[in-house]
Amino acid sequence: MDKDITLRLKNVEGHVRGIQRMVDDGAYCIDVIQQIQAAQAALSKISSIILENHLNSCVITAIRGDDPAERERVLREIRDVFDKTNRSY
Amino acid sequence: MDKDITLRLKNVEGHVRGIQRMVDDGAYCIDVIQQIQAAQAALSKISSIILENHLNSCVITAIRGDDPAERERVLREIRDVFDKTNRSY
Amino acid sequence: MDKDITLRLKNVEGHVRGIQRMVDDGAYCIDVIQQIQAAQAALSKISSIILENHLNSCVITAIRGDDPAERERVLREIRDVFDKTNRSY
Amino acid sequence: MDKDITLRLKNVEGHVRGIQRMVDDGAYCIDVIQQIQAAQAALSKISSIILENHLNSCVITAIRGDDPAERERVLREIRDVFDKTNRSY
Repeated sequence: MDKDITLRLKNVEGHVRGIQRMVDDGAYCIDVIQQIQAAQAALSKISSIILENHLNSCVITAIRGDDPAERERVLREIRDVFDKTNRSY
Repeated sequence: MDKDITLRLKNVEGHVRGIQRMVDDGAYCIDVIQQIQAAQAALSKISSIILENHLNSCVITAIRGDDPAERERVLREIRDVFDKTNRSY
Repeated sequence: MDKDITLRLKNVEGHVRGIQRMVDDGAYCIDVIQQIQAAQAALSKISSIILENHLNSCVITAIRGDDPAERERVLREIRDVFDKTNRSY
Repeated sequence: MDKDITLRLKNVEGHVRGIQRMVDDGAYCIDVIQQIQAAQAALSKISSIILENHLNSCVITAIRGDDPAERERVLREIRDVFDKTNRSY
C-alpha cells in the first residue's frame, strides 16, 4: 500500500505546485478555490486508505492483544480522527 | 449512555423547532444559518458519542470473535462512517 | 421560499424524533449514525437554500447601497459562514 | 495578497513532501493521518483568504455592474463553493 500512498501524495504535491502557478498567473479566484478543494479531496482519499489499512492491522492486533491500555489507546485514536473530520461546525 | 443520547436528540429536536419559529418570524438569514450550523454540531457530538460506545462494545466483540466475515463487516462500517464525514470536498 | 424552508425544517424535526425512537428501540449504532448524517445533510441543504436567497436579496441590496459599513458587514458574514463549514480540520 | 497565498501554498507543498517522508520511514498511521488533516486545514485557510479577496473585489464589481448575467454568475459561484464544503454528509 505504501507505494500507492506515496504516489498519491506525490500527485497532491504536484497539484499544489500547479495551484501556485495558477495564482502566479493571476487565475480567477473561484478556479483556484476549486483546485484547492480538489487537492483536499485527494488528501481525504489518502486518509481513508491509510485508516483502512490501520483498522486491518494495528487495530486488530491491539484489540486481540493482552494489553487493555494499548487497546484503549488505539480505539481512542480512531474516535479522535473521526471527531476531527466530524466537527465541521 | 442511551439516556444521554435520547436527551441530546430531544434537545436537537427542540432546537430545530426553534429554528422554524425564527424562520416564521422572519429572522435574519445569517442568524438562521448559524443556528442550523449549531444544530449540526450538536448532531456531530451525538454521532461521536455513539461511535465511541460502538468501538468499546460491538467492535471489540467482533474483532475478538471467531467470525472473520463479521470482523470485516464491522471494520468496513467504521471506514464507511469515517468516509462519509471525511469526503467534504 | 419560507414555506419550503419551514417544511424542510419540519421534516428534519420528524427525522430527529425518529432517531430517538431508533435509540429507544436499541437500534444498531451504525444505523443510528447514518440517520444522524442524513439529518445533517438535510440541514446542509436548508442552509444552502437560505444562503442562496440571502445572496440574491440582502447581499445585492447592501452592495448596491451607499453604506460602506453595511456592505463590509454583509461580506464578512458570508466569509464567516463559509469558514464555519470550511474549517473541518 | 498573492505573495501571502503563494507562500502558504509553498508551505503546504513542503508539508505534503514531509508526509511522503513520514510514509517512507514507516511512520505510525494515525500520525500520518493527523499530518494530512493539518495540511487540509492549511488549504482551508488559503481558500478562506482567497474567498475574502474575491468578495471584496470581483463580487462587488459584478453586483454594482450593469450586467445581470454576470451578477448572477458571480453569486452562483459563491453558493457552489459554499455547497461544496457544506455537503459533508
